[in-house]
Amino acid sequence: DKIRFGRSRKSMLMSDKEKRVTAYHEAGHSIITVKEEHADPLHKVTIIPRGMALGVTMALPEQDRHGMGKKEMLARLRVCFGGRIAEDLVCEDITSGAQNDIEQATELARLMVTKWGMSEKVGPVSYAEGEEHMFLGREVTRTVNHSEATAKLIDDEVKVLLTDAYAEAERMLRDNMEGLHAVSEALLVHETLSGEEVNAILRGEDISASREAEDKARAATSPTDDATQNDEAGDAAEEGKRSDDGRPAEGFAY
Amino acid sequence: DKIRFGRSRKSMLMSDKEKRVTAYHEAGHSIITVKEEHADPLHKVTIIPRGMALGVTMALPEQDRHGMGKKEMLARLRVCFGGRIAEDLVCEDITSGAQNDIEQATELARLMVTKWGMSEKVGPVSYAEGEEHMFLGREVTRTVNHSEATAKLIDDEVKVLLTDAYAEAERMLRDNMEGLHAVSEALLVHETLSGEEVNAILRGEDISASREAEDKARAATSPTDDATQNDEAGDAAEEGKRSDDGRPAEGFAY
Amino acid sequence: DKIRFGRSRKSMLMSDKEKRVTAYHEAGHSIITVKEEHADPLHKVTIIPRGMALGVTMALPEQDRHGMGKKEMLARLRVCFGGRIAEDLVCEDITSGAQNDIEQATELARLMVTKWGMSEKVGPVSYAEGEEHMFLGREVTRTVNHSEATAKLIDDEVKVLLTDAYAEAERMLRDNMEGLHAVSEALLVHETLSGEEVNAILRGEDISASREAEDKARAATSPTDDATQNDEAGDAAEEGKRSDDGRPAEGFAY
Amino acid sequence: DKIRFGRSRKSMLMSDKEKRVTAYHEAGHSIITVKEEHADPLHKVTIIPRGMALGVTMALPEQDRHGMGKKEMLARLRVCFGGRIAEDLVCEDITSGAQNDIEQATELARLMVTKWGMSEKVGPVSYAEGEEHMFLGREVTRTVNHSEATAKLIDDEVKVLLTDAYAEAERMLRDNMEGLHAVSEALLVHETLSGEEVNAILRGEDISASREAEDKARAATSPTDDATQNDEAGDAAEEGKRSDDGRPAEGFAY
Amino acid sequence: DKIRFGRSRKSMLMSDKEKRVTAYHEAGHSIITVKEEHADPLHKVTIIPRGMALGVTMALPEQDRHGMGKKEMLARLRVCFGGRIAEDLVCEDITSGAQNDIEQATELARLMVTKWGMSEKVGPVSYAEGEEHMFLGREVTRTVNHSEATAKLIDDEVKVLLTDAYAEAERMLRDNMEGLHAVSEALLVHETLSGEEVNAILRGEDISASREAEDKARAATSPTDDATQNDEAGDAAEEGKRSDDGRPAEGFAY
Amino acid sequence: DKIRFGRSRKSMLMSDKEKRVTAYHEAGHSIITVKEEHADPLHKVTIIPRGMALGVTMALPEQDRHGMGKKEMLARLRVCFGGRIAEDLVCEDITSGAQNDIEQATELARLMVTKWGMSEKVGPVSYAEGEEHMFLGREVTRTVNHSEATAKLIDDEVKVLLTDAYAEAERMLRDNMEGLHAVSEALLVHETLSGEEVNAILRGEDISASREAEDKARAATSPTDDATQNDEAGDAAEEGKRSDDGRPAEGFAY
Repeated sequence: DKIRFGRSRKSMLMSDKEKRVTAYHEAGHSIITVKEEHADPLHKVTIIPRGMALGVTMALPEQDRHGMGKKEMLARLRVCFGGRIAEDLVCEDITSGAQNDIEQATELARLMVTKWGMSEKVGPVSYAEGEEHMFLGREVTRTVNHSEATAKLIDDEVKVLLTDAYAEAERMLRDNMEGLHAVSEALLVHETLSGEEVNAILRGEDISASREAEDKARAATSPTDDATQNDEAGDAAEEGKRSDDGRPAEGFAY
Repeated sequence: DKIRFGRSRKSMLMSDKEKRVTAYHEAGHSIITVKEEHADPLHKVTIIPRGMALGVTMALPEQDRHGMGKKEMLARLRVCFGGRIAEDLVCEDITSGAQNDIEQATELARLMVTKWGMSEKVGPVSYAEGEEHMFLGREVTRTVNHSEATAKLIDDEVKVLLTDAYAEAERMLRDNMEGLHAVSEALLVHETLSGEEVNAILRGEDISASREAEDKARAATSPTDDATQNDEAGDAAEEGKRSDDGRPAEGFAY
Repeated sequence: DKIRFGRSRKSMLMSDKEKRVTAYHEAGHSIITVKEEHADPLHKVTIIPRGMALGVTMALPEQDRHGMGKKEMLARLRVCFGGRIAEDLVCEDITSGAQNDIEQATELARLMVTKWGMSEKVGPVSYAEGEEHMFLGREVTRTVNHSEATAKLIDDEVKVLLTDAYAEAERMLRDNMEGLHAVSEALLVHETLSGEEVNAILRGEDISASREAEDKARAATSPTDDATQNDEAGDAAEEGKRSDDGRPAEGFAY
Repeated sequence: DKIRFGRSRKSMLMSDKEKRVTAYHEAGHSIITVKEEHADPLHKVTIIPRGMALGVTMALPEQDRHGMGKKEMLARLRVCFGGRIAEDLVCEDITSGAQNDIEQATELARLMVTKWGMSEKVGPVSYAEGEEHMFLGREVTRTVNHSEATAKLIDDEVKVLLTDAYAEAERMLRDNMEGLHAVSEALLVHETLSGEEVNAILRGEDISASREAEDKARAATSPTDDATQNDEAGDAAEEGKRSDDGRPAEGFAY
Repeated sequence: DKIRFGRSRKSMLMSDKEKRVTAYHEAGHSIITVKEEHADPLHKVTIIPRGMALGVTMALPEQDRHGMGKKEMLARLRVCFGGRIAEDLVCEDITSGAQNDIEQATELARLMVTKWGMSEKVGPVSYAEGEEHMFLGREVTRTVNHSEATAKLIDDEVKVLLTDAYAEAERMLRDNMEGLHAVSEALLVHETLSGEEVNAILRGEDISASREAEDKARAATSPTDDATQNDEAGDAAEEGKRSDDGRPAEGFAY
Repeated sequence: DKIRFGRSRKSMLMSDKEKRVTAYHEAGHSIITVKEEHADPLHKVTIIPRGMALGVTMALPEQDRHGMGKKEMLARLRVCFGGRIAEDLVCEDITSGAQNDIEQATELARLMVTKWGMSEKVGPVSYAEGEEHMFLGREVTRTVNHSEATAKLIDDEVKVLLTDAYAEAERMLRDNMEGLHAVSEALLVHETLSGEEVNAILRGEDISASREAEDKARAATSPTDDATQNDEAGDAAEEGKRSDDGRPAEGFAY
């Protein structure tokens, strides 16, 4: 997600500059998603704002899944950083819009290190992080109980996971600069692309012919200022098949 | 236990890959249980999901017991890690499914070090870990009151206990790779194995003849899609003899 | 804002010395705002007290905006410090009036470092700061969970951002001492200046002719002792177009 | 006390191995109690379970007492460790059953160091330990207010007190191995011994003749499966003379 | 203020020794107030007890003020320490009576360092101090979120501000020992002195003639044992002109 | 106070050994009180138990007092330690009975260092100690806000104050061993001594003649087993003149 910053949520009219930054941000997520062997398949990418997000990249596993492998986790870290890196490579500035991506990646990396035994230096040890939960009538609290030395080791290992993922994602996007420009431009034209379309663009194919028909059909039935709501309704319907909160059961939205 | 990750708990249809990983995970627990002199005897192992778990390995002491010896604790640590190690040795990836095993092992190791005087370096000293409990009407709280130096010593000793147990368990499974494959394959075929059957497989015996009859009988009375519930009901009945929460009194489930 | 210190809020009659310090403080904010390429355009600057503030400098973006770029953030840090630096350069003393500016700059710098991945040394990692929120009926709390070493790194990076911004803002004001005196004197004469007027003064133009007419008109309709309220009412009307709390939607007030 | 571990408290049928470990554990407490010049006289030792304990060693002062001397405290620390050491010397394993003993010894040692000025290195200074108490209507809380350096010094001094006591108790039991075996065997035969009987055994006397009569008398009036309750009732009556919670006023139970 | 220590507040009959210590304490505050260029003018000094204080020195700004400059803050720190230093120089002992002065000075120095950017080493950074506020219905809490290294730097800078102020104030009083004795003696005779009178004494003038008449008039209308209440009533009336809590709006009481 | 340790408070019958230890403990407090130039005059010393205390030494200032000087504080620290030191010098053991004395001395020393600016190394700085208070309806909390380095400095200075006071008090008692024995023996005979009597004993006078008459008179009117209550009633009457909680207004009880 490219997250908005500030007070006003009434209107979501983005400036052209914001649209361009958002397009590159989502294109960055999309391309890493497509290029990563262990990432879930790309479902859809859009720069139509929804909720707090200026744009969304959606991945969707091929079937339900009850666990996650380390390789998939590492892929997910790299997908998280794809948005920020695209901004950095193309837009000459970076924005506050990657806050959510960084949070999501950090949370996953901390779980890998402290709960799932996936850092060799930390070892197969479970560490409680400073958390506190209160339930009505009965409070249950777990507090940090490890040493500063352990806290430092955990911080270091989390940072290594994240900076490695960032560097690898940056290398991937640098190797796909043409694709990045092409997907961003297609997003600016069509606002929403399917996973198949992104794959087609990355293969160098021209999707404008097929899209033109589709976009026209859409514009005919929904006037411009209703586009967002219609699109959201369509998504909800589509995704409703899978889970009851309108989001894909095991998929991830960046 | 091999723990699921994610939101949807409605359907527990595992993919073939997940079933295979689960089978190796539970086979790993089972083999360490059987090979450990000081572990409780293996009662049953299953890859039929129950509750949060994709599979379960159950050990059961021969009679009620009111204390636990250090040798048995060390065996239990190794059994805990058997699941993760089997994934690592065979499946080319490790998953988030070992979270519960790592937590259980860590909790036991911390008790050994901080409450039971079982670390020579820490000595016969009792240390409070950061805990907080609230009871209605009256709050009783104990907070950490030892120094950072002590916290570090405790962390170090806990880590040594766990990494030693992990290394020893890995050595045991590497020495029993054939058994690991055989038990996993039997689990994929029969879904549930008794402790006797696992022992038979590890002795190189063929359990298919005896199982075939049993499985047929079972399939006749319970259609496939009811298998889980029937099995759970059967377990509850069986275990109900021993304790009233459906789990063996002093046994452990991994 | 130049913040008051003390108990009495009944009367806001400032001494001449206080008016002079306030005029230089706001002139400092204004000049950095105007000179910074990436700062929002200067809307208005005033030394008429409002709320807790003895004076206010208002910037206003040209259109709504949903994110903020790093370059803009750095500009904002420098604008924050413009007030204090002007006091220091001209008034031979510094006051407690910059408390709010320093807080605002620190908060932004901490977000840049801990949430938005904008410090190379900290990296693309999200760190929770010690925060605690309570909602009625259900408490949700997040506590600090990073090591002292990380806390120190964050503190160091935040300090570098702030001291660099301070030094750069000081250099900018030293290069514009004539403008600083001219804007301050115009503020002491007219109390409120528009962004256009500040720009004109900095270009060396004389705004007294055009202002004379305007000030006379104003004085004719509103007796001196009502000036504050009228001005506030006028602002509220003017700003009401943009947001419902009487402040510009995405603008900043220093 | 030899503390049970686990869930089931319904039946307290101990295995032979558990009985043997318990007998040595309580014999260890008893022998240190008898051999320590400054310990209270041994009242009774039993391996009949009561409450959470698999066995109990009871000491009883010759008269009421309102304070405790340092020599007596050091003796008490050594008595605390007698149980665990006996397990270690004879049973080839140590158990979780010493948790309560270690806790009791640690608590006493911390009081000696932080409240009673009994560590020369810490000096005549009172240090609050991390404690929190809540009373209805009004909360009174004391939190730790000393430095990490002080916390480390306290931890070190507490550890020295405990490891010295442990080493001294181990030396005492090693010097009395014959007595340890004799008392344990007598406990396995008679289940409960008076302080006089333990003293007699340690003097090399044979208590079987006198006990035989007594045990027969007891067995005649109380069938085996009621032994525990009768014994407890008898204790309560006997101890009721001194305090109203059924335990000796100033005595200690290990 | 010279603060009382102990339980009984019923009677405020001071011993002669206490009166003498109080007179020197307040004389110390007064003289620094008068000699400091940037301190508010001295309004009144008294050794008649009021509230918790055995004596009070009151300063009063010439007009309302909304901010405070650094030079004024440094003067205030020195005034705070004037009382304690006078005790130390003359009375051969120091008392617990300076507790409030030290607290007030420390609080101001911490604000200078952590909120107002007045320490060069700490820089223009805002640091939250460990604070917690609860409001009914909704709790808002801010906790410390800086590193130990920062905490140490803040402590060091606060200490430097305070010890420098203490040393400077001590130098000032050593240079005015005659004035210190003269003001103290006048306080012991007349109990209350106006700022003008203290100035006169420090100029070497004799105030006894003018006071004699005044004191006689006062004694005539108010019997000795009512002196305190009358004086307080008089103060309240006098100060009531300025603020409604009976204390001068922006003045300080030491 | 010599504080009791343990559960039973019903009967306060002390053993002869306890009485002897208590007599030396209180004699120690008394002698330091008498020998210290800056301590309040000794009012009374008793080994009749009252409340939690096995004995009490009471000092009483000659008149009401509203502050405390540093010299008096240092004297009080030495008086606090007099009890423990007497035990140590004569009784070949030290007891838990000095807990309250050590707490009282520590609390005073911490105030001297952290609130009253009486440590040169800490300087004229006020430091909050970790405290938390809750009032109904509105919680006010102050938490520690200084660095570990400061906490260590405070701990060190407090310890120096206390160990110096301890050493000085020990030297004083070693110089008065004859007096210590004489006062203790008089306490064992008469149970309660007035300050005058202790002074007489220390001057080498014989108080038995005058006491004999007094004790006889007392025994005649109050049978032995009522002695405590009568004595307490007498004290309450006597002390009631000064404060309403039955203790001397500004005096101290050790």
